Amino acid sequence: MKQSLFITFEGPEGAGKTTVIQKIAERLAENHIDVLATREPGGIEIAEKIREIILNPAHTAMDEHTEALLYAAARSQHYFEKVRPALDAGKIVICDRFIDSSLAYQGYARGIGMEEVLAINEFAIGKKLPDMTILFDLLPEVGLARIHTHHEREVNRLDVENLAFHQKVREGYLQLVAQYPERIHVIDAAQSIEAVVDSVWSVLWERIQ
Amino acid sequence: MKQSLFITFEGPEGAGKTTVIQKIAERLAENHIDVLATREPGGIEIAEKIREIILNPAHTAMDEHTEALLYAAARSQHYFEKVRPALDAGKIVICDRFIDSSLAYQGYARGIGMEEVLAINEFAIGKKLPDMTILFDLLPEVGLARIHTHHEREVNRLDVENLAFHQKVREGYLQLVAQYPERIHVIDAAQSIEAVVDSVWSVLWERIQ
Repeated sequence: MKQSLFITFEGPEGAGKTTVIQKIAERLAENHIDVLATREPGGIEIAEKIREIILNPAHTAMDEHTEALLYAAARSQHYFEKVRPALDAGKIVICDRFIDSSLAYQGYARGIGMEEVLAINEFAIGKKLPDMTILFDLLPEVGLARIHTHHEREVNRLDVENLAFHQKVREGYLQLVAQYPERIHVIDAAQSIEAVVDSVWSVLWERIQ
Repeated sequence: MKQSLFITFEGPEGAGKTTVIQKIAERLAENHIDVLATREPGGIEIAEKIREIILNPAHTAMDEHTEALLYAAARSQHYFEKVRPALDAGKIVICDRFIDSSLAYQGYARGIGMEEVLAINEFAIGKKLPDMTILFDLLPEVGLARIHTHHEREVNRLDVENLAFHQKVREGYLQLVAQYPERIHVIDAAQSIEAVVDSVWSVLWERIQ
């Protein structure tokens, strides 16, 4: 079996994406499936340099359109230099966050517009969306509580303000599910990590078989 | 009279744009008109840093989509940080090359697609195209000859190959004239500099009055 497949993982921080991706990649390898697990900028020099500009704390004057274009540019380079060649070689590529993050965070929650952000991101990746997207759905309150348990600190005023933002991010993701019901599979991330891994695996394995 | 106006200058190298812009800016100032003459990245730090990534000769792996997005990102920052505030202050802004350069060079001549490059550039500048564009039209052979006279060297094989590219650039520009007949004014750049300045001035002055 030599079947390329581009699978992206989406959802908020605190949903367990990174841990689950690691376990899924291990299971794929155990099943002798050639897999590449990556996340932007993924060690791609040009993409890393673009990220440096985005994240430089001195760049307070950065316009939100500039930022969205830079994210799309970094995505483009990571995609054409790393993801695309792996797919062409017949691998299964798993990517931790991709185009739907930009749509939910920048397009919807920050209010730039989902269609507008989709247009520049379609340009970035030659209009080829992922074959399959796994969305880790989680109430923002639960994600927030998990992050704080993990970092061992109390929830503060800023976190509560952030809650409204993360609720918008979730709304954005759920709009995408309505828009791409074939592509995006929703997983209940409130389950235990083991249960989440099993849920993801069954969705994935059905597609690979 | 306090009227903002965003005017861009387009055309190939060797057409005299830079010299003409300088003379036009002087004449506007003599007529007590508040003018800002600029060109990307225009001293805007974030835009300069983006340009550095584009122009770094080590970045041979850069995908053409990444490059187009980076140009759009630099454009966005220069526009929102420098052009837009000057327009809001009632100035006349003259910009040496803008969105039509990306459309003619990358969209048309490099073959990425004019509509696609337009989409990301409209995003970059909040969909507001220039109020007026002056296109310096020149046969590529003439532009090439002028550059070589200037640099005092013979035309070589590479230049002849470049000629085909510059012919495509001109075709791209002329398609834009057909698409935006109200916005783009064609000036015959084969005339003397003085005649070109007068032609540009009369088009401009009619609009300002």
